[in-house]
Amino acid sequence: MKPLSAALLATALLVATPAQAQSGQAAQQHAPQAAPLPQSTLDIAARLREQALADDTAWTLIESLTTEIGPRLPGSEADARAVAWAKARFEALGYDRVWTEPVTFPKWERRSESAAVLGAHAQPLVITALGGSPGGDVSADLVRFDGIEALEAADPATLAGRIVFVDMPMERTRDGSGYGKAGPVRSRGPSIAARKGAAAYLMRSIGTSPHRVANTGITRFDADVTPIPAAALSLPDADQLTRLLRFGPVQVRLALDVGWNGEYTSHNVIAELTGRERPEEIVLIAGHLDSWDLGTGAVDDASGVGITMAAGHLVAQQPQRPRRSLRVVAFANEEQGLLGARAYAEAHGGADVIARHVVGAESDFGAGRIYGFNTSAPAGQRATSDAIAEVLRPLGIDYLQDKGGPGPDIVPLAQKGGAWAWLGQDGTDYFDLHHNADDTLDKVDPDAVAQNTAAYAVFAWLAAESEESFGSAPKAEAP
Amino acid sequence: MKPLSAALLATALLVATPAQAQSGQAAQQHAPQAAPLPQSTLDIAARLREQALADDTAWTLIESLTTEIGPRLPGSEADARAVAWAKARFEALGYDRVWTEPVTFPKWERRSESAAVLGAHAQPLVITALGGSPGGDVSADLVRFDGIEALEAADPATLAGRIVFVDMPMERTRDGSGYGKAGPVRSRGPSIAARKGAAAYLMRSIGTSPHRVANTGITRFDADVTPIPAAALSLPDADQLTRLLRFGPVQVRLALDVGWNGEYTSHNVIAELTGRERPEEIVLIAGHLDSWDLGTGAVDDASGVGITMAAGHLVAQQPQRPRRSLRVVAFANEEQGLLGARAYAEAHGGADVIARHVVGAESDFGAGRIYGFNTSAPAGQRATSDAIAEVLRPLGIDYLQDKGGPGPDIVPLAQKGGAWAWLGQDGTDYFDLHHNADDTLDKVDPDAVAQNTAAYAVFAWLAAESEESFGSAPKAEAP
Repeated sequence: MKPLSAALLATALLVATPAQAQSGQAAQQHAPQAAPLPQSTLDIAARLREQALADDTAWTLIESLTTEIGPRLPGSEADARAVAWAKARFEALGYDRVWTEPVTFPKWERRSESAAVLGAHAQPLVITALGGSPGGDVSADLVRFDGIEALEAADPATLAGRIVFVDMPMERTRDGSGYGKAGPVRSRGPSIAARKGAAAYLMRSIGTSPHRVANTGITRFDADVTPIPAAALSLPDADQLTRLLRFGPVQVRLALDVGWNGEYTSHNVIAELTGRERPEEIVLIAGHLDSWDLGTGAVDDASGVGITMAAGHLVAQQPQRPRRSLRVVAFANEEQGLLGARAYAEAHGGADVIARHVVGAESDFGAGRIYGFNTSAPAGQRATSDAIAEVLRPLGIDYLQDKGGPGPDIVPLAQKGGAWAWLGQDGTDYFDLHHNADDTLDKVDPDAVAQNTAAYAVFAWLAAESEESFGSAPKAEAP
Repeated sequence: MKPLSAALLATALLVATPAQAQSGQAAQQHAPQAAPLPQSTLDIAARLREQALADDTAWTLIESLTTEIGPRLPGSEADARAVAWAKARFEALGYDRVWTEPVTFPKWERRSESAAVLGAHAQPLVITALGGSPGGDVSADLVRFDGIEALEAADPATLAGRIVFVDMPMERTRDGSGYGKAGPVRSRGPSIAARKGAAAYLMRSIGTSPHRVANTGITRFDADVTPIPAAALSLPDADQLTRLLRFGPVQVRLALDVGWNGEYTSHNVIAELTGRERPEEIVLIAGHLDSWDLGTGAVDDASGVGITMAAGHLVAQQPQRPRRSLRVVAFANEEQGLLGARAYAEAHGGADVIARHVVGAESDFGAGRIYGFNTSAPAGQRATSDAIAEVLRPLGIDYLQDKGGPGPDIVPLAQKGGAWAWLGQDGTDYFDLHHNADDTLDKVDPDAVAQNTAAYAVFAWLAAESEESFGSAPKAEAP
C-alpha cells in the first residue's frame, strides 16, 4: 500500500468534497435518474457476480505469485521474474492485448541488518531497515520520543550523536486511518532527526502486529540533510526499549548493510479487453506487482493483482466485449513512491488521455472483504455509480457516498483529473501484515478474495458497458 | 519446557498408573480420611490465595527478568547475569537461606543462520537452527516427508547428499499432548537423516504459531552418526516449500554458523524457608532460569521463576514458618536436557535425601491459568492432596486425579522416587510462543500469573505445613 509521500495526498483525496457529498445525498434522497444501463446489462453484472463467487482464478493467481515468485522488491532479481509472470498470466487469461511499459528508478538493496542493546542489559532486537535508509554501524545512547511533535520540539543539543527512538503506537481501524496518523513517524522523522544531528533513527513499526515482526516501508530524506541509518522495531521490541529506559541510559548498536545501488528498469504490465464500440475509452482496474522483501507480498499486493486480473478474465468470458476498453494494470514499484503509476500517468496523461480514462480503481488494501463502494462522479453523472452500487449490495457492500478515494496507483491519474472508484476493503487486520514478514499466503481468505473479485468484475463490466461519464476531465495538477 | 530427551519419559510419567488412578477414585468415592490439617491452617491457605490474587510480585519479577536480563541461553553472557539476578531477588524477598550450586555443561552457540530457496523460485526462508546442531553451509535438493515414520522407511539412496524436509503439523491441545506426538521430528529426525546420508535436515517447527517465527529446541545426535546441520522452518515457510515442491525439484541453501564451543559452569539458584519443626523435610517448587535465545523467555520460563519465587515470598510473609522447609529453585539449563535438575538430583539424591523431598512441583508450561491439580500421593496418603484441592477450587482448578505428572525439572527426582504435584496450566496457546521469538512479556497475562501464584502459594503452604507423606521413597532408577 501507499508510500507515505502519497499518503498525505491520498488522505486529502479520501475526504470527499462537500460538492461530492452533496451529490451523493441528492442521489439518495431523490428519485434515481433515468438508468443508462438496460436490464440485460444489469443481469450480466449479477451473473458475473455469482460466477466470481464460485471461481478460484484470483486465489490461484495469488497463490502462484506469492509461491513461485515470492518477495518482489523493486529492482531485485524477482522483479523481472514477476514481470514475466504477469505478462504470461494475462496472455493465458484471454485478454486481447498484453504489453509492458518501462519504469526506471533507483534501486534500493537490503543486504543485512541487526540491532542489539549493549551493556548491562545486552540483548538482540528485532528490527528492519526502512526502505531508502543508508547503511551504517552506529552504537549510541537512545533518546526516546512519544511522537513526531515531541521530536520536532527537541533541542538539537540533546540529540547530537544519539539514536532517536520514536515510540508512537498506531491505532487499529477498519478504514486504515491509523496509518495516515502514524505516517509522519516514517516519512518525516528520519529527516528531522538527521537535521538535529542524530546518528541514527529507530521507530516503533507502523503496524498493529503483536508479533516479533518489524514493518519496513519507504522513507525519503530531505535534500538538505545527510541521511542517517533508519530502522523500525517490532512492537514487542519497542515496548522492551521503553521499559529498559526506566532503568537508565540504554545504548543500542544498529548495523545496517543497505542502501541505494544504481538504477533499474522494471515494467508496468498492462492487459486490455478492447471495447466493442468505444475502444478509445478506458476503464482501468489495477494492483501493484512489486512488494516489500520481508514477506511474500500476499496482501500487499498479490491480492490486488490476482483480484483484478481475475475480474478482467471473467469479463473476457462474456459473449461480447463491453463498449469501452477494460484495462488491467499490474503496476511496477508502488512501494517506493508510486513509480510505476507515475510513469503510466506521464505516458498516458495528455489532456485527451485523461478524459479517455473514464474511471480507475486499485485493489491495494489487503484481502479483506469489501464493505463500501463509491466513486468520484459528480452530481448528475452518478447513474452508473448508483447502478453498480445496487448490484454490489448482495455482496454486503454499502453505498457510502461520502467515503473513499483513489487507490494509491490511481492517485497520479486523479491528480490530473481522472475519476476514481473506491471498493473499500476491511483493513482491520491489514496492518498486522503490511510491510512485514507475516505478509504471506496463509493470511489470505479465499472467500474474501472471491467476494473482492465479484465486486471488481461487476464494477468493471458496468463501468465499461456504460456510456455515462464519471467526470474525468483534465485539470491543472496540484502544485 | 522439556527437551525431547526428557519428553518421552515425562510422557510416560504423565499417565498416572492404575494404582494412582485407583487411589484417586477411592479418595473421591469414600469418606475423606481424618484431615491432617486443622481449620486454622486451611484458613491461612485461603488467606494466602486471596493475597496472591491481589499481589503483583510475580508479575514484577517476570517483567524484570525478561526486560533487564532478556534471553538467557545457557552458557551465554546473560546466563551469569540471570544467576546474579535470581540470587539478589531471592535475598530481597525474605527467604531464610539463598545459595547457588554449580552446573557444568557443554556450551552451544548460535552466531548466524539463514536459508533460501535457490534457482527459478529464489526467495529467503525463515529458519532457526536446532540447539545442538553443528554449523555448515549446504546447498542441495529437498526430499520431503510428512512424518518420522516415512523418513524411517526411506531408501538411503534417495537421501544421500539431499536436505531432508519433514513437514509434520503439530496439534493444538490444552494439555500439550501434541508436543509429545511431534517430538520425535526434532529428537530423532536429525539422526535418522544423518544415518541415511542426508546433507542437512529441515523440519516444520514444532509449534502452532501461524506467524513468521521458527521454533528452536535441543536435538541430540546418536553417537554413531556424524551430525548434520539441522534447523526448523516457520509454519508459513514449511507450507511454502510444500507448495513449491508441486512445481518440481526445490534446491535450498542452509547456512548455519552455530555449534558446541567448550564448557560452561552455570548455577542452580536455591532459596529456602527453613521449616519450624521438620527443617530437614523439603517441599520443592521450581521454575527454570535459562531460556532459548530467540525470545526473552517470558512464558518459558520467566513465568515459572516469577510465580514460584513470589509464592514462596507470600509464605514467608506469614507470622511463622511452615513445619517443613519450603525450597524454591531456579534451575539452570533445563532447555538442553534438564541439566540443572539432573545436577540437583545428583547432589541431593541420596536415598535419605529423596525421602526428605516430600513433594516437588515445577511451573514450566507457560503462563496460562491453572485448570487442574493432582499429586502422585498413593491411596491412604492423599488427605493433604484432598485438602489442597479444596482450597484451590475457588481458583477454577479441578481435582483431576487421573491426570498430571512431574514438571520437567522434577523428573530427575521423580525417577529416584520423589513424589510430585501437578498444577496443570492451560497450554492451548503455549506452542504459539514456545522456543520462538514471540516468547516475550506482552504475551503474559498478569491476571493469569496471579492465579498461578495463588495456586502455588496454597500448595506450598499446605504441603509444607502437613505432616503427611506424599509417598516419596527411594527406588531403583529406571534403566
